[in-house]
Amino acid sequence: MATTPLIDGLTCPVPLTSTERVQLGHGSGGKMSASLFRERILPHFDNPALAVLGDAAVFRVPATELAISTDSFVVSPLEFPGGNIGSLAVHGTLNDLAMMGARPFCLTAGFVLEEGLPFDLLDRIVAAMAAAARRADVPIVAGDTKVVERGKADGLYINTTGVGVLHVGARPGPRGARVGDAILVSGPIGRHGMAIMATREGIGFETGIESDSASLWPVVAPLLHRFGPAIHVLRDPTRGGLASALNEIAQASGVGIELKESSLPIPGAVQAGCEMLGLDPLYVANEGILVAMVPEASATAALECMRADPLGVEAAIIGRVVAAHPGFVVLHTALGGTRIVDLLPGDQLPRIC
Amino acid sequence: MATTPLIDGLTCPVPLTSTERVQLGHGSGGKMSASLFRERILPHFDNPALAVLGDAAVFRVPATELAISTDSFVVSPLEFPGGNIGSLAVHGTLNDLAMMGARPFCLTAGFVLEEGLPFDLLDRIVAAMAAAARRADVPIVAGDTKVVERGKADGLYINTTGVGVLHVGARPGPRGARVGDAILVSGPIGRHGMAIMATREGIGFETGIESDSASLWPVVAPLLHRFGPAIHVLRDPTRGGLASALNEIAQASGVGIELKESSLPIPGAVQAGCEMLGLDPLYVANEGILVAMVPEASATAALECMRADPLGVEAAIIGRVVAAHPGFVVLHTALGGTRIVDLLPGDQLPRIC
Repeated sequence: MATTPLIDGLTCPVPLTSTERVQLGHGSGGKMSASLFRERILPHFDNPALAVLGDAAVFRVPATELAISTDSFVVSPLEFPGGNIGSLAVHGTLNDLAMMGARPFCLTAGFVLEEGLPFDLLDRIVAAMAAAARRADVPIVAGDTKVVERGKADGLYINTTGVGVLHVGARPGPRGARVGDAILVSGPIGRHGMAIMATREGIGFETGIESDSASLWPVVAPLLHRFGPAIHVLRDPTRGGLASALNEIAQASGVGIELKESSLPIPGAVQAGCEMLGLDPLYVANEGILVAMVPEASATAALECMRADPLGVEAAIIGRVVAAHPGFVVLHTALGGTRIVDLLPGDQLPRIC
Repeated sequence: MATTPLIDGLTCPVPLTSTERVQLGHGSGGKMSASLFRERILPHFDNPALAVLGDAAVFRVPATELAISTDSFVVSPLEFPGGNIGSLAVHGTLNDLAMMGARPFCLTAGFVLEEGLPFDLLDRIVAAMAAAARRADVPIVAGDTKVVERGKADGLYINTTGVGVLHVGARPGPRGARVGDAILVSGPIGRHGMAIMATREGIGFETGIESDSASLWPVVAPLLHRFGPAIHVLRDPTRGGLASALNEIAQASGVGIELKESSLPIPGAVQAGCEMLGLDPLYVANEGILVAMVPEASATAALECMRADPLGVEAAIIGRVVAAHPGFVVLHTALGGTRIVDLLPGDQLPRIC
């Protein structure tokens, strides 16, 4: 810390200046609000729509059938192996659009900042958001910042809302599962949740697990292009993990789901971490994989299609949709038994996204 | 509080059950998350797009030139005379769209809930959101809820994001002010901020001031219809009040702004409250008025157009756009003097919206 002479022979530490941390005044619509936006947000997100600084952004869509999705992110800790709340907030909303068969088109970002948040942390988070949006080629066109008192936002919360353009001819949805469908997963399960938990427990370095947080549109686009309406269901198994996503689909579609335990792609480190922490990998959150349900006849081709993308190289067929036990997910264990994989009542892992 | 017999002759208060307050488990994507959404949110917002419960909502727009706006709301207290955080969150985003000349088309709602938030308070807030959206005839098509630990969200924060359809032929914006324009305001100033401050200071009852929170589209639509591109600027002077909005416009348009103090519609109760609390009504937030800038020749007709709507009956012409002192707002006082109305550096009123 810099020091400045106060009286000859004495020095006094210079207090933290207003340029180092968020202050309450940054949220009040005056000069400080304007400079926070101009200096900390705009340079990262710069694009023509945002730079106008109006009350809203103007954009032109190439079609009139759209999808919209909103998600607030409250993950703790703010930074974790494989990403931070900023990249997660971008990927999460892009993926919600992609799961509807919609090409992500633009995003908005709403920040609730806590007084005292270090600017260098905010910078890293905003830079990660901008990088994630740029990689996905989706502009962040509108934003908003609010500031609350110290202790009232755990650093920061971010809302992202996205608009996408619906694919013509495919309408995947949670009600689309049909008896006879194969169930595919695009990659190994449990990495995001385990990366967060390992960081919280201080064992992040030992496990070496990184969050899988990523935009799934590059996996989705070829599937939609090639299989169209045969893509009955797409779902990213985030909060609540694979088990919760499959239960919701079984209930919404009125079908039964059978999983084969030996086919589940569970990384060794996730399995080990789950055993250490007493968790079930089926309920651990993912942020960069998807579940797809397609007719059995298309299953192998869809699997190859997924594996053609770097995000999908570990894709697997993990089960099938059946007429028996509608609304329930049943796991055929490696030892030859079966068990019901139920929806958890409450929280296995709070503040995971 | 209900009591239940524990041992003969003794009673024990029944503890608060899980049905009365938000719990951390409501945020984790399991059964409790699903029931929170189904029981507390969906019944209020019910519409076909939302009820599908997919990752995103599908909607069809009648045109391809759109506006999008996002805003997070952190107002404290959550309830105040004239509204609550829910109605404010709907009106705020509807108005941001309207100020771009866009007819609000659909909204999303993202909630960050604090563990322990009473369900009856949440119900009142969600009901007010739904009522505000219904009055404006704009559906809330997608939503999201997250839960954070007790003490980490001050009750709740709400993000709303809205999509609007741009008016053909009018493009009001902060850069649109032209020398010679008249400056109009659609109603009395300072009511929202003063209602909040009076509530915080415990003088809400005495002052009788209610927030002006309202959707401004009914005032904007006839202006756009009648005057089209002659509506150079529309702006709702929210955080930072009229002074901050006019400063931003003066800077963005590179013009000077002259205000006539005697023309400013300041309610007596706002003036009195400001004197009591040491505030300047020019900097006090508004949530249901707009500033419009139109060529002098259209000023009287635009004023009459505003006054035709119940929200605009107290509309007034408050000043003009000049070539002198570009980037600055100058007030001609009632006593014949002038003073510069500068942008405040920081917070006069934190957590106002």
